[in-house]
Amino acid sequence: MAKSVEEFRKEREALNEKILARDDINMKRFFALDSAVYRDGALDEKTKEMLGLVASLVLRCDDCIAYHTIRTREVGVADKEFDEVMSIGLIVGGSITIPHIRRATALWEETKA
Amino acid sequence: MAKSVEEFRKEREALNEKILARDDINMKRFFALDSAVYRDGALDEKTKEMLGLVASLVLRCDDCIAYHTIRTREVGVADKEFDEVMSIGLIVGGSITIPHIRRATALWEETKA
Amino acid sequence: MAKSVEEFRKEREALNEKILARDDINMKRFFALDSAVYRDGALDEKTKEMLGLVASLVLRCDDCIAYHTIRTREVGVADKEFDEVMSIGLIVGGSITIPHIRRATALWEETKA
Amino acid sequence: MAKSVEEFRKEREALNEKILARDDINMKRFFALDSAVYRDGALDEKTKEMLGLVASLVLRCDDCIAYHTIRTREVGVADKEFDEVMSIGLIVGGSITIPHIRRATALWEETKA
Amino acid sequence: MAKSVEEFRKEREALNEKILARDDINMKRFFALDSAVYRDGALDEKTKEMLGLVASLVLRCDDCIAYHTIRTREVGVADKEFDEVMSIGLIVGGSITIPHIRRATALWEETKA
Amino acid sequence: MAKSVEEFRKEREALNEKILARDDINMKRFFALDSAVYRDGALDEKTKEMLGLVASLVLRCDDCIAYHTIRTREVGVADKEFDEVMSIGLIVGGSITIPHIRRATALWEETKA
Repeated sequence: MAKSVEEFRKEREALNEKILARDDINMKRFFALDSAVYRDGALDEKTKEMLGLVASLVLRCDDCIAYHTIRTREVGVADKEFDEVMSIGLIVGGSITIPHIRRATALWEETKA
Repeated sequence: MAKSVEEFRKEREALNEKILARDDINMKRFFALDSAVYRDGALDEKTKEMLGLVASLVLRCDDCIAYHTIRTREVGVADKEFDEVMSIGLIVGGSITIPHIRRATALWEETKA
Repeated sequence: MAKSVEEFRKEREALNEKILARDDINMKRFFALDSAVYRDGALDEKTKEMLGLVASLVLRCDDCIAYHTIRTREVGVADKEFDEVMSIGLIVGGSITIPHIRRATALWEETKA
Repeated sequence: MAKSVEEFRKEREALNEKILARDDINMKRFFALDSAVYRDGALDEKTKEMLGLVASLVLRCDDCIAYHTIRTREVGVADKEFDEVMSIGLIVGGSITIPHIRRATALWEETKA
Repeated sequence: MAKSVEEFRKEREALNEKILARDDINMKRFFALDSAVYRDGALDEKTKEMLGLVASLVLRCDDCIAYHTIRTREVGVADKEFDEVMSIGLIVGGSITIPHIRRATALWEETKA
Repeated sequence: MAKSVEEFRKEREALNEKILARDDINMKRFFALDSAVYRDGALDEKTKEMLGLVASLVLRCDDCIAYHTIRTREVGVADKEFDEVMSIGLIVGGSITIPHIRRATALWEETKA
């Protein structure tokens, strides 16, 4: 996996640890919940990651999009499936999602290797 | 199916016709595209409707949520699956999505019959 | 002009007066500024009202859209011009703007008389 | 306290119960967390309710604004303090917050009795 | 025209090509539509670019703002007209638009040459 | 105070001056109002800065968050108080606020010295 993906992960984890080290109980509970909702349930992890990706895309949260782009790759989302998630996000959220689709697509292709 | 669902549909269609009757070519193209992205493709219609639902939820568009709630019911989304879509939307979009989850849940239960 | 337009105006003014009666200096200054930016300047009032309308549409503020729809009618925006403002808002803001375009179009046609 | 405030509360609680009855564990955890963050801590309840109110205002969530408006009244926020919360929300979030400030102000005055 | 403007254009085009090369039909249709709405019609290109600019500003999409800032310069928007578009966006969208106005203004002045 | 904080301030001020030098009267009035709402009033400056911070967080405006993070430090907000502002913003605004909380927390700790 590409260098920049590793860097993204490391910075993300370092800062998450900084937040959790502050020991705010509600913050910690939210982080636990944020992991829990994406686990296999009635819907499988693959579907849930695509849900997380499209939600992040229409809300235009680049770090969230990057995270879920990497995760959708890991859980086996196919190329055409990724494109269709992007298309739905684009139609729902409009042309303001395009800069985020640009970056997500570049990252998606980078994680192919 | 409940009365209010039928009313929602009728009002929605009447107003859509009013828009399309104005004969703006770009508006019409967008409407066509908006139907096209939810059709079976690499992802099936059921997955796509759930993607449309979670995107509508985090963007807090009540009419869009209502439309996709009815559609997810029609294409066979199960109760627990609906709940998990709501949960992901809630975690991604925060407590401001709760009023929309309230209305979506009421509508979901109403469409059960 | 239709009844509902008159009602919208009256309710809006009654509530604005309630806000201003509270006599918060910053609130009052903002209201003055909010009127000032739409006055004729380098750009004429007609262009400015269309700018206010498209901004309100993509931010999906129904009361703001209604206000600027009525105002664009008053300052002489033509039918095709109104449609093009809607189309740009739709492309920029995506399908979540459609419920607002439905209501704006109904109001636009209602103000025709 | 006025009738409409009571109605708002009842409808809100009825629908919350409907959601919780579905027994989705993550949904329930979020609801618990949503109560927890507003309890007295390093910041007192009054400050926290004002934080919840301004956050709801700039995100333009009417039900959330109504809830926190009622709560700020209950925990002893004064008239001028309420106005200053509204003013900060207005400056941060712009004129699109005005329709929400209108409704919040009407509700604030209604809860005075 | 300044170096950074050229760089912005090149990166934008390179990534757009990457997206279009994926050959998703709905994505391509949206891109075509996104060009079409800004062409001369009932409203001229200059007015349409200003509409695109204010919509991008209130939605706080930096790449979109940069694109329309460059385009408004190209189609002959005057200095005072640009300022008035910014002012309307600021009043509608609030102080959170200011960081974007800062960057748009810097780019506007850079494209003067 | 750390280097990056100083750089942030300088760049912010340089660009603000560029905007104000354009001499748009409405822009100037808004800037004056934007300073006025945070001054001691019925609510003290400390409470107002926390209100500005949580509003900026849920609207995910990084420059605004950075500004109010620095300001809350200056006016004497304590560590646990800062954490509680972040927690409320997180619950109201959801997981999309986390990338901003990461950067705000890093800056908060940097301004400790």
